Amino acid sequence: MIIIGEKLNSSIQSVHDAVEARDVRFIQELAKQQDEAGASYLDINVGVFIENEPELLSWLTVTASEATRLPLVFDSPDPKAVEMALSVYTGKKPLINSITLESERYDPMLELALKYKTGLIALCLDDDGMPENAEQSVQKGCRIVEELMISGIKAEDVYLDPMIAPISTSSEAGINGLKAIAELRRLHPRVHIVCGLSNISYGLPARKFINRSFLVAAMTSGLDAAIMNPLDKEMMCLMYGTRALLGQDEYCIDYLDYYRSELAGN
Amino acid sequence: MIIIGEKLNSSIQSVHDAVEARDVRFIQELAKQQDEAGASYLDINVGVFIENEPELLSWLTVTASEATRLPLVFDSPDPKAVEMALSVYTGKKPLINSITLESERYDPMLELALKYKTGLIALCLDDDGMPENAEQSVQKGCRIVEELMISGIKAEDVYLDPMIAPISTSSEAGINGLKAIAELRRLHPRVHIVCGLSNISYGLPARKFINRSFLVAAMTSGLDAAIMNPLDKEMMCLMYGTRALLGQDEYCIDYLDYYRSELAGN
Repeated sequence: MIIIGEKLNSSIQSVHDAVEARDVRFIQELAKQQDEAGASYLDINVGVFIENEPELLSWLTVTASEATRLPLVFDSPDPKAVEMALSVYTGKKPLINSITLESERYDPMLELALKYKTGLIALCLDDDGMPENAEQSVQKGCRIVEELMISGIKAEDVYLDPMIAPISTSSEAGINGLKAIAELRRLHPRVHIVCGLSNISYGLPARKFINRSFLVAAMTSGLDAAIMNPLDKEMMCLMYGTRALLGQDEYCIDYLDYYRSELAGN
Repeated sequence: MIIIGEKLNSSIQSVHDAVEARDVRFIQELAKQQDEAGASYLDINVGVFIENEPELLSWLTVTASEATRLPLVFDSPDPKAVEMALSVYTGKKPLINSITLESERYDPMLELALKYKTGLIALCLDDDGMPENAEQSVQKGCRIVEELMISGIKAEDVYLDPMIAPISTSSEAGINGLKAIAELRRLHPRVHIVCGLSNISYGLPARKFINRSFLVAAMTSGLDAAIMNPLDKEMMCLMYGTRALLGQDEYCIDYLDYYRSELAGN
């Protein structure tokens, strides 16, 4: 399971303030915490600073990279911001978050991925908009995977996001999303399937419980990567438990390791 | 989701002591707590008292029935104990836990189910022993469902238990169990599929995390009933969250109800 730490995001007030104040210490602490908690990548997003997103994304890139050796995920719809950040980045193979089939976004993001040899989070989203059901997610997902393969991107560098709607918007949103994950996993066994976990619970109270349920249900359906909060120990426990259930953790070694380091005595 | 409360079981030391002392108050309190926490049935088991199981199961039947109107699940491999308990029971349609294809157990348990009009928990277990993989679970499961249908038991009165082995015994145990659940669900859409949740984590530390993961993963695969601890609020939350994800809770009404009554402020 590939955990993409979501905390370095300026939509979180404390991170917003730290970015605004160029608080190196706060950012580096949050980077380290996510690293130690088991993240495989760190997502960085300064989307709320529309005016100077390129400069701030670059600052965050350099600042986070000094604190951790984890690869970064450049989270912006703006190719200019992503390119400026990529140009100052010297770490391990990063991801661009995200490319879509929208005509204005596809070409520039693809170009950056090829130029800087990055992986790509690819949304099931095109000029017709968001998928409205499982079939549309699968259709749009297959189309973007196909386009990316033709363009020279390897399957294992694609992180496909089926764009699951919040269950508060429709009682079918969750089951449709899980069906889309299962079908995309079946059709594209070598492509990663990723979700931003917390979107599913938008508009509901006690969101963490929905998010945790969704992580397990989505892993059971074929998800192998998630943009999530690695500092949520309950969530991480469920993740390790689910890996053990799914036969992805021989002799439960990782589960037992996590138990010994984080849970003994609980 | 059908929650069968597991707490009235003499393998729990405090319950053992209460049964031994005929502590009506303790037993009735535990029955009420499980009822209020959302159980649909209460399992009762006095298996550790081999000498006088029939008498004690009957005592527990009467005692629990005075405290709650929930139907009971008579949990014993001994048809004599089950019959004595059934003969003093006056509540709603109960379940017998359990019938198997073992030649010595099938006929007497079936006879009791027909005589007392009960439902049945049917284990995927025959004279050849436990299933060793998903295929064997499915095979044994289909055979017992078929036998029970022929004998006049309705599909909706059968609670099929695929007999999932602990993941500590094999890295494949969990994924095999989930595959068996999914396949049995596909083949028998009207039969209930049930598990005793905690068996999966036998031999591991921090079992509750594995049990919680398993509940969500198994529901995602088609489980619609579980013998579990309804007093575990985290578990119940994940259960309500998963129902909402699976499209089993329109407008998230039950999730929101549970949130308001149990979680507000958390």
